[in-house]
Amino acid sequence: MSGVNYVPTGIPGMDEILAGRGIPRGHTILVSGGPGSGKTTLAIQFLYTGATQHNEPGVYVTLDEDPMDIKENMAKFGWDLKNLEEGKKLAFINISPVRVTPSEGAGLIQIGMKEFRLVKLLEAIRQGAEEVKAKRLIVDPLTIFTLQYPDDVERIHAMRDLMRELKRIGCTNLLISELRGTGLEREHQFEEYLAQGVILLHTVLKNGRAVRTFHVEKMRGLGVDNQPRPYKILDTGIEVFPNEPVY
Amino acid sequence: MSGVNYVPTGIPGMDEILAGRGIPRGHTILVSGGPGSGKTTLAIQFLYTGATQHNEPGVYVTLDEDPMDIKENMAKFGWDLKNLEEGKKLAFINISPVRVTPSEGAGLIQIGMKEFRLVKLLEAIRQGAEEVKAKRLIVDPLTIFTLQYPDDVERIHAMRDLMRELKRIGCTNLLISELRGTGLEREHQFEEYLAQGVILLHTVLKNGRAVRTFHVEKMRGLGVDNQPRPYKILDTGIEVFPNEPVY
Amino acid sequence: MSGVNYVPTGIPGMDEILAGRGIPRGHTILVSGGPGSGKTTLAIQFLYTGATQHNEPGVYVTLDEDPMDIKENMAKFGWDLKNLEEGKKLAFINISPVRVTPSEGAGLIQIGMKEFRLVKLLEAIRQGAEEVKAKRLIVDPLTIFTLQYPDDVERIHAMRDLMRELKRIGCTNLLISELRGTGLEREHQFEEYLAQGVILLHTVLKNGRAVRTFHVEKMRGLGVDNQPRPYKILDTGIEVFPNEPVY
Amino acid sequence: MSGVNYVPTGIPGMDEILAGRGIPRGHTILVSGGPGSGKTTLAIQFLYTGATQHNEPGVYVTLDEDPMDIKENMAKFGWDLKNLEEGKKLAFINISPVRVTPSEGAGLIQIGMKEFRLVKLLEAIRQGAEEVKAKRLIVDPLTIFTLQYPDDVERIHAMRDLMRELKRIGCTNLLISELRGTGLEREHQFEEYLAQGVILLHTVLKNGRAVRTFHVEKMRGLGVDNQPRPYKILDTGIEVFPNEPVY
Amino acid sequence: MSGVNYVPTGIPGMDEILAGRGIPRGHTILVSGGPGSGKTTLAIQFLYTGATQHNEPGVYVTLDEDPMDIKENMAKFGWDLKNLEEGKKLAFINISPVRVTPSEGAGLIQIGMKEFRLVKLLEAIRQGAEEVKAKRLIVDPLTIFTLQYPDDVERIHAMRDLMRELKRIGCTNLLISELRGTGLEREHQFEEYLAQGVILLHTVLKNGRAVRTFHVEKMRGLGVDNQPRPYKILDTGIEVFPNEPVY
Amino acid sequence: MSGVNYVPTGIPGMDEILAGRGIPRGHTILVSGGPGSGKTTLAIQFLYTGATQHNEPGVYVTLDEDPMDIKENMAKFGWDLKNLEEGKKLAFINISPVRVTPSEGAGLIQIGMKEFRLVKLLEAIRQGAEEVKAKRLIVDPLTIFTLQYPDDVERIHAMRDLMRELKRIGCTNLLISELRGTGLEREHQFEEYLAQGVILLHTVLKNGRAVRTFHVEKMRGLGVDNQPRPYKILDTGIEVFPNEPVY
Repeated sequence: MSGVNYVPTGIPGMDEILAGRGIPRGHTILVSGGPGSGKTTLAIQFLYTGATQHNEPGVYVTLDEDPMDIKENMAKFGWDLKNLEEGKKLAFINISPVRVTPSEGAGLIQIGMKEFRLVKLLEAIRQGAEEVKAKRLIVDPLTIFTLQYPDDVERIHAMRDLMRELKRIGCTNLLISELRGTGLEREHQFEEYLAQGVILLHTVLKNGRAVRTFHVEKMRGLGVDNQPRPYKILDTGIEVFPNEPVY
Repeated sequence: MSGVNYVPTGIPGMDEILAGRGIPRGHTILVSGGPGSGKTTLAIQFLYTGATQHNEPGVYVTLDEDPMDIKENMAKFGWDLKNLEEGKKLAFINISPVRVTPSEGAGLIQIGMKEFRLVKLLEAIRQGAEEVKAKRLIVDPLTIFTLQYPDDVERIHAMRDLMRELKRIGCTNLLISELRGTGLEREHQFEEYLAQGVILLHTVLKNGRAVRTFHVEKMRGLGVDNQPRPYKILDTGIEVFPNEPVY
Repeated sequence: MSGVNYVPTGIPGMDEILAGRGIPRGHTILVSGGPGSGKTTLAIQFLYTGATQHNEPGVYVTLDEDPMDIKENMAKFGWDLKNLEEGKKLAFINISPVRVTPSEGAGLIQIGMKEFRLVKLLEAIRQGAEEVKAKRLIVDPLTIFTLQYPDDVERIHAMRDLMRELKRIGCTNLLISELRGTGLEREHQFEEYLAQGVILLHTVLKNGRAVRTFHVEKMRGLGVDNQPRPYKILDTGIEVFPNEPVY
Repeated sequence: MSGVNYVPTGIPGMDEILAGRGIPRGHTILVSGGPGSGKTTLAIQFLYTGATQHNEPGVYVTLDEDPMDIKENMAKFGWDLKNLEEGKKLAFINISPVRVTPSEGAGLIQIGMKEFRLVKLLEAIRQGAEEVKAKRLIVDPLTIFTLQYPDDVERIHAMRDLMRELKRIGCTNLLISELRGTGLEREHQFEEYLAQGVILLHTVLKNGRAVRTFHVEKMRGLGVDNQPRPYKILDTGIEVFPNEPVY
Repeated sequence: MSGVNYVPTGIPGMDEILAGRGIPRGHTILVSGGPGSGKTTLAIQFLYTGATQHNEPGVYVTLDEDPMDIKENMAKFGWDLKNLEEGKKLAFINISPVRVTPSEGAGLIQIGMKEFRLVKLLEAIRQGAEEVKAKRLIVDPLTIFTLQYPDDVERIHAMRDLMRELKRIGCTNLLISELRGTGLEREHQFEEYLAQGVILLHTVLKNGRAVRTFHVEKMRGLGVDNQPRPYKILDTGIEVFPNEPVY
Repeated sequence: MSGVNYVPTGIPGMDEILAGRGIPRGHTILVSGGPGSGKTTLAIQFLYTGATQHNEPGVYVTLDEDPMDIKENMAKFGWDLKNLEEGKKLAFINISPVRVTPSEGAGLIQIGMKEFRLVKLLEAIRQGAEEVKAKRLIVDPLTIFTLQYPDDVERIHAMRDLMRELKRIGCTNLLISELRGTGLEREHQFEEYLAQGVILLHTVLKNGRAVRTFHVEKMRGLGVDNQPRPYKILDTGIEVFPNEPVY
């Protein structure tokens, strides 16, 4: 496997789960988690360590949260994101749907945003990637995009087109996705088949205790540890415990 | 994290769960609970202690219950809400949908209220916030609002617009939401992803006993205790027990 | 809490669960139970003891069962309802949908009854309440009413209008509702949020044994025992056991 | 309770469960069971013992099975139904939807039968009841009737009209119904609320063993044993074991 | 029960479960199983032993699989079906929907087959039954037929017409049906109520082990063992173990 | 069974489960698994060992993944697929829906692909099979094909036509399918009944541990071990452990 190389994730314990290597370079990984599971933290930690330790600039494409808010929330981990932005090591691209500015103090006018689709997302991605010559890329959350395609067949084709374009652009990508089900009887989503890797961040309630579990469901091109492992959100970011059982 | 500060909740035990601090100032928190879980009690307790102990006036925007009824029900906790209202420390805004007054003794005429939407809610919020220069704000229940948007994409956009406007207004906000599912296999709602914090008030039936559990599912900008904890509705209001297991 | 007072229920053991007091006067309580759970028995017992022991006349608005049948079935508990009716202490109002009388021996003609709605129900309630100057009121079953509103938003508004009119009329009200689900994974109904109190009468099958459980899910304005408690249907009516565990 | 009397069921053990008495005379009872649960056997046993031991003639209204087949299948219990028919103690009314006779050997022509409704069922019931001056009546299966009303409100009204007409005719009635769900999480059907009694014949699979359980969910006007009890289908018909636990 | 007689099934252990007798002659039995449960094997074994040991010719009506394939697959059990066909003891009728032959090498053209219905199935059955003067008959799988009737009422009527015609033709019939659910919470199908007998072939996963279970849910006219029993698919065909528990 | 022979799978342990033989030659087997279950690895391993050890050329028809990606991902197992392609022992046919090339740098244009159907798939299969005189054939994933047929009856007919054409072409075929459900209560799919064999690759979560299980649900013409067995994805490909319990 001479031609293949790997991107260290910067999340303590995570590379050990990924066969001691990291994410295969150029792959697109789905990171799926519930509310409060640390999806955004993991994504920023991936970009931050890439930019500061491996000289790999990163792009964060946000479809929901304001980049200002993200930077503020991430400050508590001691990550100086503004400094990275100024050094062209990190770019935030905000493509959350535009709102019509309310005229004459009439307050906010809600507009239909259903025409947001693939072309716009790809433009944003390309723009961000060029801006910093990015090697790592985040789309957060993918949900806003996939909800636009209620038809299964159209959604699969849109996802495939997205995957192919991401490959052409050449970054290593994390697509952040929101889990709907909370219990054991989850349906697999099409996205899990289309992505080259799938990481699930569950919070399992077991005998009245919440346990955070990190589960690599899939990682093409790599023999991974497919056991769920506990993880924590510490003052320094996410840490996974690759040698511990969940319970 | 010099720039961030926190709002003490006034609910005994709750700030300990929130990293010993409280709710990040200016954030919008979803409080989701079943019937009889004490959602309104928690909300009033948050406003009452804000107004009386921290000099932070509050607004209670009600979409369902008559403010008179709320005040009456809350009297049993010894909270003198009328006094606060008169002192401009608390305002109730009632935007439950208007009814056409029945003419000529014909009794009540039910009218379609489906056109109630975002603009009206925001007007009410702004009005209340200005009236008392509010620092804390409640919307109870959010359900009446979200039911207006059966389309997922429209609902996400409406919720986002609401969140952004709330941020601009600048209070710390609790949005009260009604749980539908009663068991373990709940679906995560979009609102849980859009809010900056999520608190769940469950009543779990375990071996024929009801156990009230307080679960901080999510709290952006704060390393919280994500374990479910027992809580009680006492004569003095809600108390959470941050060091006890649920069972 | 000088201004609030309480209505003793007349069901042995039930007032103990309701903080030793009873139902807050003027409130509207949802009583939800399965087939054979004794919903009608509980309702009549509430009216009968009100009329005979507290001089509080009552009205029973029936949307389904014939008042004759109710009186006959309740005879076995030794409650002389006819005597109360004659003494203007009790009124039955039958608003089960009218049928067109079959002409010429053609048998019964089924007619569409879908236009039965709020106005008609409120007229019946007012008429009954005036007739006996009622202090207590039953609507049984609410299901026939709520089924008319398949749209969630319309149903919430209709229920709210009903609740408000009931408050204006001024009785203490039990709305009898039929449970659909039989297992643990029940969905909360909107009615549970709109009512001021919710009492669930479940029959739980546990290891092949049926256990009747009385569960006060919610009771605004009152610190209640929220534990499920066993109850029985005895020769003398319903009795709840407020100090016993369910199993 | 001087005016009330009871109909002995003739099923060994069943009257003991029904407070030692039987079914309240004139009531309409829903008997709901899965395939092979012995619903038809129970119904015939009720008619047979009525006719032979209590001089109460019976009518069996079949909406599905050919009376010839029923008689043949019941022969194994030693019940001579033909003799009862000849003695005008029993009548079978077959109102399974008519078929157009195939002309010219072309085989069977399937026709739309969706217009079968209440009027036709009631005519058949009246005809049968007059023919033998019936005191006991069976409708088997009710399912064919209720499926005609996919709209909930229409179905409730049709069922109520049926119940009222049955009351006017004056027999004691068993309506045989087919269970859909096989597990614990069954939905209560509207019919269970409308009938004056409900008996469930379940087959529960417990640790790989099938256990037949007889459960009186509801019986108006009677304080019944609401515990599930085992029953068997013996050479002599159904026997219930009123003093044994299910397992 | 002088007039009734029974058809020995030829499946070792099965007649013991059927009260030591077999299937009541002339009845129509539903055999419902999952993929790989041996439904076809059971059906052929029934026909083969009928033809070779009891001089009862049989017909196999296939709606899906090619008779050639069936014969080939069954060869491994040592059953020489071709010999039986030549001796007019067995007939295969293939009524899987016809395809339009592709002209000019254009490959297969898929055509709409939705007009396949009852008349065609009955013609095939009659033809086969006359050809060998059949006493035993299989329809495999019934699913293709029932899927044509998405409307419940139409499907019930079509099934009833099929049952009646089968009775008129006079064979003892097995209708092979495909199970959809894999778990414990199965819905009973209408076919289970309409057939005179129901046999379920489940594969239950219990603690990581697969257990094949043979369950006679229903068998009119016969007091059967209604316990699930283990079965195996051996080199000699299916064998049921009527005296063993499932686990 | 002189005429039947078997195709060794090349997956260590798998032939032992298949009665020590392999897959019946010419059959079409459904391989159904979740994301990351190794479906593609199993398929390539089947083709690779066929080509290198049994002189049986193979065709891989891909409806989703780029053949380049597959070859790259499989390199880690030491399988030199390019060499086989050059030696005409292996062909990849890519029929993932074509995209319109974006003109003038406008980026990717998503087009509706709903008209992709049976004829196109069969052409691709025939072309590939002729190219290398294939004996083994893969379609991966079947899901893209079956999603085109939301109507059950049409889907069954399309699948049957596919199965018949595959039989005519004469290879031994694996159809790769994507599992939707993750829990125990899975619905059987029509494809499981139509295929001649079904292999399920589950990942079961048991007490917080993930266990990969290989389950031959069905294999016509072969007495197989129907117990779930553990399997692993090793550096050398998939290995099944035919003598070990799952747990």
